[in-house]
Amino acid sequence: MVKIAVFGASGYSGMELLRLVAQYSVLELVAASSDRWAEAPIQDHVFDGPSGSFLSHREAFQRAQTAEIAFLATPLKTSLELAPQLLDAGVRVIDLSGAFRLRDPALYPAWYGVEHTAPKLLQEAHYGLCEMFPLPKDTRLIANPGCYATAAILSVAPLLSARLIEPNAPIIFDGKSGTTGAGRTVDEKLQFSEAAENVRPYRVGKHQHTPEIEQALTVWSKHEVVSSFTPHIVPMRRGLLVSAYVRARPGLDDAELQAAYMDFVQNQPLLHFSTTLPETLSVTHSNHVVLSAHFDPRCQTICAFAAIDNLVKGAAGQALQNMWALLGAYRS
Amino acid sequence: MVKIAVFGASGYSGMELLRLVAQYSVLELVAASSDRWAEAPIQDHVFDGPSGSFLSHREAFQRAQTAEIAFLATPLKTSLELAPQLLDAGVRVIDLSGAFRLRDPALYPAWYGVEHTAPKLLQEAHYGLCEMFPLPKDTRLIANPGCYATAAILSVAPLLSARLIEPNAPIIFDGKSGTTGAGRTVDEKLQFSEAAENVRPYRVGKHQHTPEIEQALTVWSKHEVVSSFTPHIVPMRRGLLVSAYVRARPGLDDAELQAAYMDFVQNQPLLHFSTTLPETLSVTHSNHVVLSAHFDPRCQTICAFAAIDNLVKGAAGQALQNMWALLGAYRS
Amino acid sequence: MVKIAVFGASGYSGMELLRLVAQYSVLELVAASSDRWAEAPIQDHVFDGPSGSFLSHREAFQRAQTAEIAFLATPLKTSLELAPQLLDAGVRVIDLSGAFRLRDPALYPAWYGVEHTAPKLLQEAHYGLCEMFPLPKDTRLIANPGCYATAAILSVAPLLSARLIEPNAPIIFDGKSGTTGAGRTVDEKLQFSEAAENVRPYRVGKHQHTPEIEQALTVWSKHEVVSSFTPHIVPMRRGLLVSAYVRARPGLDDAELQAAYMDFVQNQPLLHFSTTLPETLSVTHSNHVVLSAHFDPRCQTICAFAAIDNLVKGAAGQALQNMWALLGAYRS
Amino acid sequence: MVKIAVFGASGYSGMELLRLVAQYSVLELVAASSDRWAEAPIQDHVFDGPSGSFLSHREAFQRAQTAEIAFLATPLKTSLELAPQLLDAGVRVIDLSGAFRLRDPALYPAWYGVEHTAPKLLQEAHYGLCEMFPLPKDTRLIANPGCYATAAILSVAPLLSARLIEPNAPIIFDGKSGTTGAGRTVDEKLQFSEAAENVRPYRVGKHQHTPEIEQALTVWSKHEVVSSFTPHIVPMRRGLLVSAYVRARPGLDDAELQAAYMDFVQNQPLLHFSTTLPETLSVTHSNHVVLSAHFDPRCQTICAFAAIDNLVKGAAGQALQNMWALLGAYRS
Repeated sequence: MVKIAVFGASGYSGMELLRLVAQYSVLELVAASSDRWAEAPIQDHVFDGPSGSFLSHREAFQRAQTAEIAFLATPLKTSLELAPQLLDAGVRVIDLSGAFRLRDPALYPAWYGVEHTAPKLLQEAHYGLCEMFPLPKDTRLIANPGCYATAAILSVAPLLSARLIEPNAPIIFDGKSGTTGAGRTVDEKLQFSEAAENVRPYRVGKHQHTPEIEQALTVWSKHEVVSSFTPHIVPMRRGLLVSAYVRARPGLDDAELQAAYMDFVQNQPLLHFSTTLPETLSVTHSNHVVLSAHFDPRCQTICAFAAIDNLVKGAAGQALQNMWALLGAYRS
Repeated sequence: MVKIAVFGASGYSGMELLRLVAQYSVLELVAASSDRWAEAPIQDHVFDGPSGSFLSHREAFQRAQTAEIAFLATPLKTSLELAPQLLDAGVRVIDLSGAFRLRDPALYPAWYGVEHTAPKLLQEAHYGLCEMFPLPKDTRLIANPGCYATAAILSVAPLLSARLIEPNAPIIFDGKSGTTGAGRTVDEKLQFSEAAENVRPYRVGKHQHTPEIEQALTVWSKHEVVSSFTPHIVPMRRGLLVSAYVRARPGLDDAELQAAYMDFVQNQPLLHFSTTLPETLSVTHSNHVVLSAHFDPRCQTICAFAAIDNLVKGAAGQALQNMWALLGAYRS
Repeated sequence: MVKIAVFGASGYSGMELLRLVAQYSVLELVAASSDRWAEAPIQDHVFDGPSGSFLSHREAFQRAQTAEIAFLATPLKTSLELAPQLLDAGVRVIDLSGAFRLRDPALYPAWYGVEHTAPKLLQEAHYGLCEMFPLPKDTRLIANPGCYATAAILSVAPLLSARLIEPNAPIIFDGKSGTTGAGRTVDEKLQFSEAAENVRPYRVGKHQHTPEIEQALTVWSKHEVVSSFTPHIVPMRRGLLVSAYVRARPGLDDAELQAAYMDFVQNQPLLHFSTTLPETLSVTHSNHVVLSAHFDPRCQTICAFAAIDNLVKGAAGQALQNMWALLGAYRS
Repeated sequence: MVKIAVFGASGYSGMELLRLVAQYSVLELVAASSDRWAEAPIQDHVFDGPSGSFLSHREAFQRAQTAEIAFLATPLKTSLELAPQLLDAGVRVIDLSGAFRLRDPALYPAWYGVEHTAPKLLQEAHYGLCEMFPLPKDTRLIANPGCYATAAILSVAPLLSARLIEPNAPIIFDGKSGTTGAGRTVDEKLQFSEAAENVRPYRVGKHQHTPEIEQALTVWSKHEVVSSFTPHIVPMRRGLLVSAYVRARPGLDDAELQAAYMDFVQNQPLLHFSTTLPETLSVTHSNHVVLSAHFDPRCQTICAFAAIDNLVKGAAGQALQNMWALLGAYRS
């Protein structure tokens, strides 16, 4: 049995994590925090969740001391507080917020509007995009990737490692996400009457996943990557598509392009390269990723796509995947 | 009274046209063709449409001889047949298909899969994007712009005329459209069960609005424009957003950018430049267009947006606007 | 020119009213109140609205003194305050809230949670369901019917007047409404993430349209009507269907049923009796109503349906229809 | 290991079944039939499905001979052919169509439009609503309940067994279902452009689940039940709510009502009685059922509700539940 704790268990990612946890009899949930539902049975709110009750933050923190691994599905500031304390208590931490994703603490004020209070942990944290970055031995802290970042990075990673693109042109990422990506925040613009029959961009030029994407792709390609990332809200609950537009290296042909992706997805049970066009519905409620890429010689542009479920591969499912990695096992 | 005829009146654009026509007592509908509903009262199918009955194609064609203006909301091949005959009979034609949008007949086999049978009319046809191309005297044939093309062209036109962009980089257009853009075609991928909770690209690198966009922007900017256009279906009935990504001219600043758009929309009652972010819902069921543009100096990229209703400004509303232009009047 | 004022112009019904008003050049908008958007040009928020600016409530009230007719698209309490003052100033009032719909002031505490402060006006107010209740001469105050009430009442009115039902059985109304029926209230349950892919009943046994339905049907049939009304939220923005289940009079046959409805819709340009099944989409963005009725002899039950657009026939469109009635003209 | 076969594996219920099957390592899928995708790897179409390939119907039939249990997620006519053959080969059958749900073969022509070709099996088949009808020993053939029937029956079963209702009044069922309930059939009325922003009834008085509901409730209550069932399509992919309206026994009080439901759900891990209002979203993608009931003394009516996921508890999940029952084990 592996003892685990979940903080922020009544958010969309937290609830999804509970559902996934309930599917594995080897996992024992020792604490699930939710100030909103504290003391209520989990199964009153998540019918197919594990048994037990939600706990107040304080009580969950005490119980979590006995856990092997804690998941933080909490806002960045809560994660910044909790992670050091849990690590000190010997609990390994998988954080779903942005608190530990960026190496450079100087980026936090600009992109997240906060001073980082645990800069040392930024050096220690492992960026948990399993298919690209193998887990170092003795990892204690995993920064679970952002939903847009997961899709954006995977969409073009094969192009970068295979050196198929013009290295100095910025990569254009156009993201389209369902509304659960915004969490439970109650917001007039996210009311059904405002969000249905509507598509709109938001945080243009300012979305906090931008430096995360650039950092991961720079590490991966060993070449500085600059990108323009523009997220859009589309009228669906779940699902996320990133469409990437990249300037192709002169002389690129389709065979090379396909080979790069085939190579990338090989032996990766959760990655699929589709020669037809991807769609988010095919991966909804799963931890799978569909990639696709098309070269248009007319404009020397590669259109690459990645589709995921924002709450699974983009949050809870990837967090569980990171847990299995930490535990040395691997399950989808 | 102005006598008009509508062909293809039971398609989504045709029905929308009927609704608009019914709002103007100066318009007299002499024929509305629909093989599907021939002989049925129009108001049985379009409650707020004009009085009268749908006619078979054949009968509508006869009655249309007396019309001043005919709208063709028909498939390209039908338009190719009808337009020359109506023009010969002295009826002016506003065509909503792609049949007369491209100057160069050689583009038709590649982008539309057909040989063009009336190449002379391609030289004569006026591309009816009213806000950009003034109507020449004695115009007999108007090619009503495509829905994606309308939004794509308007989104960046101010950047091109103000010379704010790097002229040799391709312009990236990422389009997002509601499902009515596909017309009434019954298609498994467009069933609610397949299209809801789903986003997907389609016709990547092959969409027929691509050469239309390039042609209009080349004429407008007097400089050859190359573009990459990628349409996506999003789960909504109506509404269309184009997000354009353009390489900025070195030294661009925000004030110049804003000035270019303010200048462009000035005295244009249907165009709005928004300093906040645009959304399709704000223009649904109207003939209005919202434009927006943001410069990101980090990646030297301008993100420009245009939102329209695909059936109104993207089809029937623009067609009516073209009719008022033909009639020398102007109403929105 | 008819001078009109609109209070509560930034709510969904108010904005719809502005759009409709802009279509009639005979109407002159002297005031549109919105504390939210006060001083902003109307066309900044309602592109296809009339010219002019939104006013603060206070300023709108002053300007409204010169109006012939004022529309109150305000909450019940605001209507309770405004209506007497406007009537005293000689302005006729069309109220879209529930403030003047019920004859009996004693019903207000139970169904609306408020004491009624203008009980005399309840006697004076005319219930403005135009197709059923002719406007008395010299009407000063019209209570515009509720959205559910409009559909529920119309769905069964022909059955009652033709005496086709068992008079002592309660009528079951099952209502299904789009989310704009709830107005702009920001509410977690109405967030897209909670309301999409979801259907749920609400206010079971307690919805304030229940006594309104019973009152109108009792007046209409001259026999006391008792009903059970259960509203449901369905994942769409606009549209409202009421499904009514009624015990049939013994011996009823289909011909009688159809005749009753045909008779009811005769000479009513906005009412349609459909022998096929109704749907809300066919009346969206219009002031039309589709009725349908089916007799099932197996269970001696009549299923009757009415579909409307909740913001048009269920609010702003019906309000305008009432205005034309007040003005002695009639336009849909 | 339990060997199973799935026929009709590319329909929505079939695909859902594959996903569920993949979660249990004890299940070995020996055949999954799909003429549409024959020979393609299952995981090309169902990423989180089991390994192996889809087979043609013919080949699947041969392989299925070795299975212990076969699931038929096939049209009624296919089930009518397959079931007898599989039973003869010693394979137990769980049929998801309506082929074996009605005891009386005479009902098939009227409600399904077919003559029943295996009337003896109708006597043998067990109606697999696990929470109400215990599995007889040596059952070979299970008729998996219909989606609407599951919800309708469960919504009022506690009222009937506790004798809380007027026995001679028909029970009114108003059903609201997502579009996947209609299967993959391509149909203009189910196109996104026609089904979004729309609610409509269908098959009024004629839906084939009507006699199934009446049969189950008559057996359960030992009193003949007559009902009126009206299904509606609402714009969502998954989820199903039945709202039932029942005439209450004189003198009923709320405590009795609640006790009846509490008693019914006791020791039933998948049934939940909610004192707040139910919603379909809370059970989406799960095999759970939420029940709720409210007594309105004004009109002597009980409003009872049941919410399920139409593809899980309404199809594949319940089928798997029946399999565990057949296997003598029980898992949700």
